[in-house]
Parts: sequence; structure tokens; C-alpha cells
Amino acid sequence: MSDELVIAEDTLPRGFRWAAVKAGIKPSGKPDFAVAAADSVASAAAMFTANRVQAAPITVGRRHLKRSGGRVRVVAVNAGNANCATGEAGLAACEEVCRAASEAFGCEGHEVFPSSTGIIGVPLPAEKLVRALPEVKAALRADATGFSAFALAMLTTDTRAKLAHAAVQAGGQTVRIAGACKGAGMIHPQLVAAAALHATMLVYLFTDALIEPAALDAYLQSAVETSFNRISIDGDTSTNDTVLLLASGASGAKIGAADAAFAEALSEVCTSLAKQIVADGEGVTHVVELQVEGAETDADALKVAKAIAHSPLVKTAWAGCDPNWGRLMAAAGYSGAAIEPEKIAIWFGELTICANGGRAAEYDEKAAHAYLKQREYSIRIRVGDGTGRCRFWTSDLTAEYVRINAEYST
Amino acid sequence: MSDELVIAEDTLPRGFRWAAVKAGIKPSGKPDFAVAAADSVASAAAMFTANRVQAAPITVGRRHLKRSGGRVRVVAVNAGNANCATGEAGLAACEEVCRAASEAFGCEGHEVFPSSTGIIGVPLPAEKLVRALPEVKAALRADATGFSAFALAMLTTDTRAKLAHAAVQAGGQTVRIAGACKGAGMIHPQLVAAAALHATMLVYLFTDALIEPAALDAYLQSAVETSFNRISIDGDTSTNDTVLLLASGASGAKIGAADAAFAEALSEVCTSLAKQIVADGEGVTHVVELQVEGAETDADALKVAKAIAHSPLVKTAWAGCDPNWGRLMAAAGYSGAAIEPEKIAIWFGELTICANGGRAAEYDEKAAHAYLKQREYSIRIRVGDGTGRCRFWTSDLTAEYVRINAEYST
Repeated sequence: MSDELVIAEDTLPRGFRWAAVKAGIKPSGKPDFAVAAADSVASAAAMFTANRVQAAPITVGRRHLKRSGGRVRVVAVNAGNANCATGEAGLAACEEVCRAASEAFGCEGHEVFPSSTGIIGVPLPAEKLVRALPEVKAALRADATGFSAFALAMLTTDTRAKLAHAAVQAGGQTVRIAGACKGAGMIHPQLVAAAALHATMLVYLFTDALIEPAALDAYLQSAVETSFNRISIDGDTSTNDTVLLLASGASGAKIGAADAAFAEALSEVCTSLAKQIVADGEGVTHVVELQVEGAETDADALKVAKAIAHSPLVKTAWAGCDPNWGRLMAAAGYSGAAIEPEKIAIWFGELTICANGGRAAEYDEKAAHAYLKQREYSIRIRVGDGTGRCRFWTSDLTAEYVRINAEYST
Repeated sequence: MSDELVIAEDTLPRGFRWAAVKAGIKPSGKPDFAVAAADSVASAAAMFTANRVQAAPITVGRRHLKRSGGRVRVVAVNAGNANCATGEAGLAACEEVCRAASEAFGCEGHEVFPSSTGIIGVPLPAEKLVRALPEVKAALRADATGFSAFALAMLTTDTRAKLAHAAVQAGGQTVRIAGACKGAGMIHPQLVAAAALHATMLVYLFTDALIEPAALDAYLQSAVETSFNRISIDGDTSTNDTVLLLASGASGAKIGAADAAFAEALSEVCTSLAKQIVADGEGVTHVVELQVEGAETDADALKVAKAIAHSPLVKTAWAGCDPNWGRLMAAAGYSGAAIEPEKIAIWFGELTICANGGRAAEYDEKAAHAYLKQREYSIRIRVGDGTGRCRFWTSDLTAEYVRINAEYST
């Protein structure tokens, strides 16, 4: 894991402080308790996993946001334990951490937003987090050191921190957006608004724009739809996935409900983070951008992309740099989308691989094999004459992924 | 691969002969052209993959069955080339083999039923099969030697032949059913009646009962629904999957439309073959029988079983004998079924693992780990109070599966 993060100080949004400490939950003994605090209460928008099995912090986080009307003062994230499938005791443990944090920070309990990631089904040792609160509060910093610590402590099987930032001008002022996330396995986020995610992808976005919670919600949903909801490593939708966006207002720049520049900047940050998650996926050796086009609808294009992204045969072929395009066709065929097999065309970058549902006349196996040796590349597939399309990012499936996840007990 | 097959002669249905030869399509040089011939035209019922991308023999086989009114004289199966994504040329190559076979055997072209399995997107060398016809015809035998040859020639990445048989009494006579199949990867058959399957699972069932095609269809659909449509190795539904059932009538025993004993015997043969396919799956080290219960509907129970059977995280945990039941819960949660998380209960055989959505009080990790070390075992999961249930067979996901399928070029 690279602990050296270079974050330019002036890319961080104003109005927040970050820190992390070792609470003793990760068996490795590494920092595992990350806290972000807003100088004053921030506007908040969140999206959670669509999994029906939801971790305790998901239930509590949704409840708190509802009660506070979309306001958050403190974000408390622990890694090493997902606090999922832990029943009533899990909910109580989560509430206890929030209550202790509210006392430590002098805010309401429902202004604390909790998150957990790690093993499922093991009771959360709330006392360890409560005991670490004074230390993490004292360590809070509004600078790159604090942000790095926050970003690193939430990692589990990740090999590196994932950060992104952007800035936009609004009313003559600079508005900053910065994000940090974790996630390397159990990655196929299916986020729904004000609903809930599981133990794997956690995303925290901060901006110093002045935005009302309702507008913030709309910006977040739009950005997530084309970023985090368009990636998959293993097709496993976690029970803890959470994306939280906080706006401190510290820049003084008011952002209304339809600011295209802000929407685009937020979308860029989310897309960058989403791609970083795939690139750091467990055992990943190839990152693939899928472009599906010619489907009847965008929803059908997404079905094709997901079938390809979840096919073990396609993913293992990618691991072997094998231009086995027949497996792509087969996956498109069973995707459930209304495709037209005899119109299927496939390109690896600029190379034409398949045309009219069969091997292209100009197919060059050597060139195709060489193309797939790159670490990152794009594959375009046309499945008919429709206007439906989508972009999706996914990865190969390697023996290393199996090794990581077959290790008893993760 | 074990080439020693012990088949008792008297288990083989009368009225058929089988053989196989080396046509030169498999790069290994092993037998790759299997033929079964009925002494006189047989009643036939078939089911094909639900994949929208369908191989040429699927299209031709459906057309022939329709034209013949469900009658087949000759089954011609080649391994080493799937004749899929081969366009018009692929259809012509398939028809050429059928035409040549009909001349060799003195029957109608549409009484020949073709199948292909192997690599996708490579033109089928029809001339090699046509050239081998006289030799394979001369080699036909109505005995175990012929049946073994037929069963072995269709194999690809399989490590052994898969056979099953049963006998039932009807009108004082013995009716025999025997089946042979291949399939080890790209296994998640989704068979639909008179529709079509891909390059991987091929199943040939023979009986000497006297049955009309319409009744044969009904028996086949019922047997397939709870056997081949209830297994998955990798979730990849092939473009060539085919199940063919032929009835020669040679026993003289007439079977009507609702013979429970015949239906049960056929179902037993299909279930045995389906389980053998999972057991011989690529890289498989554990075979798991899933029992899902308490779902709102049987369809919901099947959704849960499939989500679990397709989850890379669940399958890799099985590979590591890791009793990580949280992954089972997470998969049930994102299955799309209307489950009740707080009522989830999980058993590994007789061991209670999870109760009321959390770790069971009597959970014994050592015992659970030991249980998962067995090669074959069952996992039962209750997802609510409903009456919906299903049985499903699947496998673990190992580094060996990745190695087999990442090998360039399969």
C-alpha cells in the first residue's frame, strides 16, 4: 500500500477537518478509524446499497439523515468490521458510537454519519471506537496530512488510497470538490437514493460550495448513475456500500439547482474514483472500458455491459490476453437484452474484431492479442441498430483474485 | 481422462447404434466425431439454449425437427469447433454435413440432427466430417463399446465421460433409458423448449420406449426443468447447449402421455447427468447442493440460488473451505428476491450456522470449516416464511478454473 499521497493543499475544500487513528479493529494493527468533521453543520446527500441485506450503519445513517433533514457534522468510519448481520446488537453498537461522537463534538447524535467496512457477521467492538474518539478528535487537521490519513484508514484489501478532486468557479469564487474512497472486492455497486449499500465501497465527497440538501441529492444521484453504478469487479453487490456528499458552504459560493459546471466537476470526481476502484480491484491485471451501442434502449445496453462484465469466461480470457471474442458474443446473447446477433460488431480499440455477427475479414489475431496485453484498454460492441448505449468499467478475473478471496478466513 | 467406461450391456436401450472416429478437428487428434443412428426413424424431442446468439447447428437442428415433425434417424456431433458466430457459411457447412449423412444413411436430410461444441467464431471444416462419414458408419455398434466411443468423442475440457441409465417396466416389458453428456465450463444451461443452447452442454438421451413426439416433448421439458436448468458452474449460458431425447420404440412398450414411472426414471437420469457435469466442472474441487426455502415463490427461491451460485465471493470462499456465511447472506440480499433479512437461517448439512439474520448461538467455526472440506456437501438457506423452494447444484471457483480459461487460446 502506498502511504505517500501527494495532495496539493489548495485542492481541499474549506470547512472540513480529517484524521484517523488505530482503534484496534483491523487485525493488522493499522489505522482503522477515520473521522471527518465539518466546522459547522454541513448539507448532506447520501446513496446506499440496493442490497436487501443491509449493515447496521446503513440503517442508522439513513435514519440520522432523515431526522437531521440532510445535515451532518461528523463522519465516523471504521474498517475491519462491517457491522452487518449483527442484529439488534449491531444497531445498538452503531448508535453507541454515534452518541459518543456527538458528545465529543458537541452536536446532535443524528448529525453523526456512521460507516463500517470489513468482515460480516462479527459483533462490532463499539467500545474500541468510543475509546479512540478523544485521540482522533485531537488529531483532526484541515490539510493534506489529515485528508490522507482519513483516506488510508478506511482501506481493507485495497492496495492504495483513491483520491480525486476538481474545482469550479461560481460567482467569482472557487468551489472545491475532493473525494476519497475504498473498495477492491465485492464491487458491483447498485446505489439507490436514500436507500442502502454493503461492506465494500465507501465514498466520501466533500465540497465547500453552499448548497441545500435537496439540490445536493440531485447532483449526487446524477453523478453516481454514470460512475459508481457503472463499475463492477466481481458482480457482488455489497451490504454496506455508501456514497456521502457533504457541502460545508465555507467557500461562500452559492450553487443553485442546475449548475452545469458544478454537476460536471462532481461527475468527473466520481468517475475518476470509480475507475480507480476498478484499477485497484483484487487481483486485477487489466482494466477494461466497455462501450455498448446499438441497443434498443440504454437499459438494454447496460444489460449487455453487465453480462460481459460478470462473465467468468470473458474475464478469464482477458486475464490471458486471449482475443476470444466469441465469449463476448455469448455473454451479449444471454444478457436478456433484445440484441440482433447477425448485426453484432466488436472493436478492440481501433481494431475491428467481429462484424455482422462473425469474424471480421480484417481480423488480425496477433494484433488483437497484442492489444489485450495493455493494462488498460477499451472494447466496443454494437448489438443492433438502436440508439441505446452505455459506458461501463470492469476488470479481468485472475488466479490472484481467487487466492485473495479463498484465503481462510477473510 | 478416463477412457475406461463400464457399461452393462443390458442397460442400453434397443434400436440404436453408436460410434465415433477421428475427423481431425480437435487439435489433440483425439476422436471428435460422434454419431448415433436409430435402426429406423425415432421419435425426438429437443431443448436448446435460451441464448440469443445461437450456433448454426442449433438453427439447423430446430429447422430439421420442425420439418420432420419430431423424427430423427441420425445424430451427428462434432467436438473441437462450435460452428457459432460463423454466419451463412456456418449454416451451409452444417447443412452440408447433414446432407452427406442423409446420403450415407439413406434417410432424409431433415432426419439428421447436428450438434457442435468447441471454439466459437472459427469456420467449421465440413469436408473433414463428410470425409469421415463412411468410417464412422462402418464402426456403429449397438453395444457398450459403441456407446462409450460416442460418449467420449464429444468431450472437450471434460475430464471424464458422463453416463446414466435407468429402466422401468411398462406393459410387462422393460423400457430402458440411457444418456451421455458433455460439459465442464460455460455451464449455466437455460433451456427452453424448441428454442436453442451454446458450445458447451450437449446431452443425448436414448430410450427404446414407444412414444409419440408430443408426449416425448412434455417428458423432456419436465425432466430438464429440475435437472439441467438447475445447475451452474460459471453462470455462462452457452450458445450451443442442446438436450436431445430419442425414442426408438424397439422395446415395443408403448408409453402414454402421463406415465409417472417413465417420467421419474427420465428425471433420475437427467439429474444424475446434471450433477456429473457440475462434479466434472473446470477446476472444481467442491460440489455444492443448495437448498433454498422460505421464499415467497419457487421463482424467488431460484433467484436466491442463482445469485449464490454465481457469486465469485461465495465460490472462492468454498474453494478455501471458508465458512464465510456473510457472503451467502449478501448474495441472497442482492438476488432480487423478496427476502426477509432478519429471518435468514443457514445450515451446512446438520450444522446451524446462521439464525435470525445473524450468527447462530451454536455456531462452531471449526466444525463448519471441517464440513466444507468435504468434496460434496449441502447448504440450506431459509430466506423467510414463504413456501417457495428449490434445489440447485453448483461448484466452487478455483485458481485452476482461471488457469484453464485464461490459457491463450482456448
